[in-house]
Amino acid sequence: MAGTRESEIKAASASASSEPPTRVMMGVNESTIRGYPHASISSKGAFEWTLNKIIRNNFSGFKLLFLHVQVPDEDGFDEVDSIYASPEDFRRLKRRDRIRGHDLLEYFVKRCHEIGVACEAWIKRGDPKEVICHEVTRVQPDLLVVGSRGLGPFQRVFVGTVSEFCAKHAECPVVTIKRSAEETPQDPVDD
Amino acid sequence: MAGTRESEIKAASASASSEPPTRVMMGVNESTIRGYPHASISSKGAFEWTLNKIIRNNFSGFKLLFLHVQVPDEDGFDEVDSIYASPEDFRRLKRRDRIRGHDLLEYFVKRCHEIGVACEAWIKRGDPKEVICHEVTRVQPDLLVVGSRGLGPFQRVFVGTVSEFCAKHAECPVVTIKRSAEETPQDPVDD
Repeated sequence: MAGTRESEIKAASASASSEPPTRVMMGVNESTIRGYPHASISSKGAFEWTLNKIIRNNFSGFKLLFLHVQVPDEDGFDEVDSIYASPEDFRRLKRRDRIRGHDLLEYFVKRCHEIGVACEAWIKRGDPKEVICHEVTRVQPDLLVVGSRGLGPFQRVFVGTVSEFCAKHAECPVVTIKRSAEETPQDPVDD
Repeated sequence: MAGTRESEIKAASASASSEPPTRVMMGVNESTIRGYPHASISSKGAFEWTLNKIIRNNFSGFKLLFLHVQVPDEDGFDEVDSIYASPEDFRRLKRRDRIRGHDLLEYFVKRCHEIGVACEAWIKRGDPKEVICHEVTRVQPDLLVVGSRGLGPFQRVFVGTVSEFCAKHAECPVVTIKRSAEETPQDPVDD
């Protein structure tokens, strides 16, 4: 019995170091207050929590997968001053949107690179909550971390919450990191 | 700018090793199939997931806090054959119940001790979902991990789910570990 336990422990220690890193997916978006390319308060909070509380100094044990979902404008125009007259304009618009997303992701990728945590980052377009769950099914991370503004039930009715939907529908364990009270802006819908 | 980043990284590394361990609270209960003192399938699953995916080989970086909530029988009797006639009988009953809980917790504490992860374990009586949330407020862990049978909406109406309640009401980040399909017993309400 004691022998079995010892071999179990050895197997556990060996597998922990030789096993592939724990893959943590994070949905990140841009700030509604500070403007592009700043990350939202809740995205940053979720990222810092993952670094401080989960990864800690085990830099090689984890891989972060950053997903930014861009919400397409209903009419396809991001700037009211711009005039689009040809398919080429729309192609350019799409290219520019992709570059926008890249600037946002750069913040997270740079931090990971500096700390020494492996990461990947990519952009998708669509409804954030649905795209995140779809990407979880496709990529199969070990954990999904999403930031949340921590809105009350009244505010949630109007703005919807991505985190709540993901916690219910994503096919992997999900942890929601609520924004701290000190960091909540005057209008809590802002982020 | 580069200097600031470098000092940030150094600060991050230093704080990760000198900071107190990440305190992970786990709600654990006994198996409905294998009987006492075996831990439920979902409790074990949540524990193994935490070891393999979060703690990995960073044994000193985490402290596990095991909470077992005993549900008191409505009439105060656990065994129909027993006769209780005095306050002393009830005191003895309560002492015996506490010993029951200790046997269950022993499984988790032993595993932690063998692996080298610091832990604490304790027992409370009451409604599991409410007691867990109350203990989270009192103990303030960094993360609460709860196992879930992964029941469908129809089954949930009748048995209620502790994990769903905690994910909504606990004052800390919560991760729910669903029981894998291979481990689900014939009657999924069993655990």
